[in-house]
Amino acid sequence: MDLNALVRDLPMSFDLSMSPRLRVTPFTPRVEAAGAKAYTIYNHMMLATVFRSVAEDCAHLKEAVQIWDVSAERQVEIVGPDAAKLVQYSTPRDISRMADDQCYYIPTVDARGAMTNDPVLNKLGPDRFWVSIASSDLLFYYKALAIALNLDVQVFEPDVHPLAIQGPKSFELVRRLWGDAIADLRFFRHGTIEFNGRKMMIARSGWSVQGGFEIYVDGAENGLGVWDMIVEEGRDLDIHAGCPNGIERIEGGLLSYGNDMTLDHSPFEAGLGKYVHAGTICLGDEALATMTTPTRQIRPVEVEGPPLPALRQWWSITDGRGTPCGTMSSAAYSPDFGTNVAIAMMNNSHWSQGDTAVVHTPDGDRAISVRDRFWL
Amino acid sequence: MDLNALVRDLPMSFDLSMSPRLRVTPFTPRVEAAGAKAYTIYNHMMLATVFRSVAEDCAHLKEAVQIWDVSAERQVEIVGPDAAKLVQYSTPRDISRMADDQCYYIPTVDARGAMTNDPVLNKLGPDRFWVSIASSDLLFYYKALAIALNLDVQVFEPDVHPLAIQGPKSFELVRRLWGDAIADLRFFRHGTIEFNGRKMMIARSGWSVQGGFEIYVDGAENGLGVWDMIVEEGRDLDIHAGCPNGIERIEGGLLSYGNDMTLDHSPFEAGLGKYVHAGTICLGDEALATMTTPTRQIRPVEVEGPPLPALRQWWSITDGRGTPCGTMSSAAYSPDFGTNVAIAMMNNSHWSQGDTAVVHTPDGDRAISVRDRFWL
Repeated sequence: MDLNALVRDLPMSFDLSMSPRLRVTPFTPRVEAAGAKAYTIYNHMMLATVFRSVAEDCAHLKEAVQIWDVSAERQVEIVGPDAAKLVQYSTPRDISRMADDQCYYIPTVDARGAMTNDPVLNKLGPDRFWVSIASSDLLFYYKALAIALNLDVQVFEPDVHPLAIQGPKSFELVRRLWGDAIADLRFFRHGTIEFNGRKMMIARSGWSVQGGFEIYVDGAENGLGVWDMIVEEGRDLDIHAGCPNGIERIEGGLLSYGNDMTLDHSPFEAGLGKYVHAGTICLGDEALATMTTPTRQIRPVEVEGPPLPALRQWWSITDGRGTPCGTMSSAAYSPDFGTNVAIAMMNNSHWSQGDTAVVHTPDGDRAISVRDRFWL
Repeated sequence: MDLNALVRDLPMSFDLSMSPRLRVTPFTPRVEAAGAKAYTIYNHMMLATVFRSVAEDCAHLKEAVQIWDVSAERQVEIVGPDAAKLVQYSTPRDISRMADDQCYYIPTVDARGAMTNDPVLNKLGPDRFWVSIASSDLLFYYKALAIALNLDVQVFEPDVHPLAIQGPKSFELVRRLWGDAIADLRFFRHGTIEFNGRKMMIARSGWSVQGGFEIYVDGAENGLGVWDMIVEEGRDLDIHAGCPNGIERIEGGLLSYGNDMTLDHSPFEAGLGKYVHAGTICLGDEALATMTTPTRQIRPVEVEGPPLPALRQWWSITDGRGTPCGTMSSAAYSPDFGTNVAIAMMNNSHWSQGDTAVVHTPDGDRAISVRDRFWL
């Protein structure tokens, strides 16, 4: 059914009742004090969505530096002689040549080749990984495989809490705090910093395309200390608290699992075919081999007209005669590009650059056109 | 670390930013129209938490009838020749004598015997089950076991959406709508009703102890129709929209996974030892055999003094000398019993009826005493 029609008149935000089940993070008091105006729930945990306004947060992210509480990117630690094997069972991306200081973006799939998550895989050593997950309990998938296949591994959620430093001035800030070796880390490589005598992983990564780092804060009790140290050092760089930004991440083509792709989609449909390698032991390998030519795929899409309302529910897309040809999963008005930027799953009839169609929003129909690349 | 200290000054509710990832239900427009004041996110889905006030909702639930959108109790369908085997791998409760019209409350565990969920298992036939889950993606656990053990089953989330009718007048309402055979269902048995030519399961169950039913609405497109039919028929019974009630469920001893017990607890610690049967093929069987004598366990606890503040984060409990002896996971003021009712995980030194201790709340310390049974 068209849930979008169902929710047409619903408010865009709701009052969220808290209980321990919706976890706070080690940084939540600072996030609140910094003026977070709203949150989402992600991996059963709080994740801020806006501070000043999404547009103001976006502009600031692009010119300065922000500190983001992304603890909700929970870690699944997999450690033991069979750790690499267990990870490989879950993803079609070949991890056999991964270096011990490397991070991989990996689609994970079930036996049908359907996407279960799109984590960042951090390799900590030959027998140790952190799977930094999007919002689904991938922990359970690994636990079940480990016991069913009698693998020699431990699988658990460690007391580790990612804290991102994002934006062009993040490099200067990190250089001041931890020196050149860390500031000059290659993209998707990680190093080690120390805080209060505790070694912590820091990666050149993050859910923006403005550049930056993610510190995997070891020990919840160190959260406030690390946060305060970073903010103090970044004061003259105009550091602000921020969060994954709803405009910038669309401009940059960063996908959101649960929004842009779900268990209903394959990695090929999500545009992640380059991470699907044939012949691995991935449990979805056989299914994926039959799915290499999808009939729908994620595309950057421009939407004409004034700023769109917030996308509360997937919006249907039809061709000129009313026949469905796609679904819009994320949309926002981009002040920098002066247009509405969007992500849509388009049918192959309408997925080429310049193809046009109509998206049905709660505010009425809008013309859209397919682009060949994202904006950033 | 003591997260409670960390969040002492945080507000009890937050603004929740919506996106498709936080799923609406087929009933959400009716829930909103009925005046839901707040929600939680449960299995990535909206679940209302209060309509008039938690106390008013509680009083009404106990004397009339309410309709609850509990779609967030998502179903995991397991169907095929190996369905019973797959279910049994996940739970220590022996399901071998379960009837085809029966519902079982089952703790589910991982290989370490740690609780992964506490679903209601609905048997639909010899080879078909719906696992009606609390808030954790148990779907992934079953998917992984199915592929790793090469089981002949399908595992998926069906287009099925539970809608509860709870309260003493639910029996009269159900009798009017579907006759004696349904109204007289035994507790935790299910039957079949029809709506728009579609057969739907109805169970004598629900997350209150006031009695009632849960309709497993088949097909999201039927949601509004079923809701409207029930409300229309119940008008003279003072039917109101409601939701799982934070007071009544503590009075009645209904546990909340993620709040009262988590992956940190065994079924024995959760007071669910009677559902642990030795000698099943449950993958946690071996671990559980070593855990039969827990040193902490869930207890009903009375808290002295005026109505407590809402419990935002677990509250620590200490003995007279400041030594930790428990953790409070749920608490509310009960107008009917004129006291604060609570659920706590108590150490064996302080878990006997009449034992006293001190709980540390954001509003200060309070004396508590352990009860031998819940209030309802």
